[in-house]
Amino acid sequence: MEYRRIKDQDKDGVIVDDDVENLRGRSHSGSPGNVAGFGGNSGDLSKWKRKSIVTLALTVLTSSQAILIVWSKREGKYEYSVTTANFLVEALKCALSLAALVRIWGSEGVTEDNRLSTTFDEVSVYPIPAALYLIKNLLQYYIFAYVDAPGYQILKNLNIISTGVLYRIMLKRKLSEIQWAAFILLCAGCTTAQLNSKSDQVMQTPFQGWLMAVIMALLSGFAGVYTEAIVKKRPSRNINVQNVWLYVFGMVFNAVAILVQDFDAVVNKGFFHGYSLITVLMILNHALSGIAVSMVMKYADNIVKVYSTSVAMLLTAVVSVFLFGFHLSLAFFLGSTVVSVSVYLHSIGKLQR
Amino acid sequence: MEYRRIKDQDKDGVIVDDDVENLRGRSHSGSPGNVAGFGGNSGDLSKWKRKSIVTLALTVLTSSQAILIVWSKREGKYEYSVTTANFLVEALKCALSLAALVRIWGSEGVTEDNRLSTTFDEVSVYPIPAALYLIKNLLQYYIFAYVDAPGYQILKNLNIISTGVLYRIMLKRKLSEIQWAAFILLCAGCTTAQLNSKSDQVMQTPFQGWLMAVIMALLSGFAGVYTEAIVKKRPSRNINVQNVWLYVFGMVFNAVAILVQDFDAVVNKGFFHGYSLITVLMILNHALSGIAVSMVMKYADNIVKVYSTSVAMLLTAVVSVFLFGFHLSLAFFLGSTVVSVSVYLHSIGKLQR
Repeated sequence: MEYRRIKDQDKDGVIVDDDVENLRGRSHSGSPGNVAGFGGNSGDLSKWKRKSIVTLALTVLTSSQAILIVWSKREGKYEYSVTTANFLVEALKCALSLAALVRIWGSEGVTEDNRLSTTFDEVSVYPIPAALYLIKNLLQYYIFAYVDAPGYQILKNLNIISTGVLYRIMLKRKLSEIQWAAFILLCAGCTTAQLNSKSDQVMQTPFQGWLMAVIMALLSGFAGVYTEAIVKKRPSRNINVQNVWLYVFGMVFNAVAILVQDFDAVVNKGFFHGYSLITVLMILNHALSGIAVSMVMKYADNIVKVYSTSVAMLLTAVVSVFLFGFHLSLAFFLGSTVVSVSVYLHSIGKLQR
Repeated sequence: MEYRRIKDQDKDGVIVDDDVENLRGRSHSGSPGNVAGFGGNSGDLSKWKRKSIVTLALTVLTSSQAILIVWSKREGKYEYSVTTANFLVEALKCALSLAALVRIWGSEGVTEDNRLSTTFDEVSVYPIPAALYLIKNLLQYYIFAYVDAPGYQILKNLNIISTGVLYRIMLKRKLSEIQWAAFILLCAGCTTAQLNSKSDQVMQTPFQGWLMAVIMALLSGFAGVYTEAIVKKRPSRNINVQNVWLYVFGMVFNAVAILVQDFDAVVNKGFFHGYSLITVLMILNHALSGIAVSMVMKYADNIVKVYSTSVAMLLTAVVSVFLFGFHLSLAFFLGSTVVSVSVYLHSIGKLQR
């Protein structure tokens, strides 16, 4: 009954705003289980707090992720197979979500919202984000035929624009004029902050390179927005159950990637060949930030996610000054200024909507 | 009587908005002489047109100014004395304003608003902008002890911020929050557009260099805002009369500069030594854009002037691609994007004020 109702709302394209009502309605009617682990009270302040906590967690985890990557590069080349590490990240996320679920079952019992069993109708959409990410990761190898790694870092900022556009089209959520302006600024500011003396080479990217960068940005944006649609479609469904299903398919698709790309290496050298302490830390960090992304999708949205990871990028650079003695460029200061103004405009743009 | 009334308004800090009322009132009462040369009708549309025309003129003249400078640099080093050229610019502006006045006297007769004779009270403030610009030009020689020329180009963008701050403080005109954000973006965007591989050297500028750059930005901003205050204080006074007086003092101060800096060279080699066709074109262009600045101050404001010259900087770069085969950098595209968003935000910020 409730499921049917939400499906109808979906057609009208007003899923999200309705979710919030739904969530509030349910917890008022004495069923706080749906937000277990984040404080039961779903008042406006509590929702704002929960949104802030998951956003902050994502920002901190994304920053430390980048710092771990810099650290691992300083330690030497990647020796381990990336596909096995990705598989372990999915497995760890799945295990952590299951552990959270078991705790919730212990305290609240098994309810319709937190039971793991599901219908084909609910589960059928879960493989799609995992499949999209896999396609994106495979394409990533081909784009390097046209663009070098620093150039790719710059082109990746197209993700910001694609996420905004797909968020508007797929979730039918409106951004105000000022918020659109802020979004363009976020993209320009992040790119500016990453400029270095070799950045201009990206202007010589051939058409195929641009095309692939745009396709990858669309895939990545589509996967993000689709995940948000999935976890918000059933607002009362426990996020940990939704995560378990998302990550099960993540494990399946990454197992396929191991078979396709690294089968020989895994058979000959072993699954854990080349793993070090830092590899373990990176897997742990990726798993936690993956869960944080899911939480942000459920309790905030893709726009918050983009802002959070962009600010994390700037934080990383500042922290790297202290940790690794990096020098901040003038471009970094200018880009950070533009990003800061963008965050400000996004927040005042919201008030005027 | 009228003069006294305006003085009182000045104290209340609402000169500008009142000016507009004043101007409208006067032309309705059958005295269109005050806007001679720009079409008599002072309706809203006509005022908007006049504002647009002077702004467009300033943008085009500033762009072509920069192009002439690039051209002259390609032709070889400056051979002529800069102080004599500056003097001739002031003299030419003065002559052009006088010629415009003579035409107006012929068509409308001499009125209180367009007569050249003046009171000490009116004329006493006119030397101040000229004196400020002279001090700024003299300081310019000292700043190069701390900053190189490309670094100085970047630090000059501080003018944008200083103009905004002094405009707010001295003319007591408010900018909306969005317009302030737009102004910070304009400064960051212009600087980004000018970034090149050597820009990071500006981060090593010693404290004295920053201090002098800030002082020069304040002097320049102060001179601009003060000029606006002068020409708007008497809204019905013909702008050509105001210009004649401004430029007379400009000639006096530049004559002093010749005596101080280039006296020997002028005596030994002659006043026009090293002048070429391009020198003449540059003097002509500087004179016309100087008059355009005055008109923008009278009919628009310093904020419009800053936007106009910033957009001109971007136009120059685009035109240089075709004229001189310049390559546009990624930083230029990013900076231009930020400046464009800034212009957009400034315009929508105005509507919400």
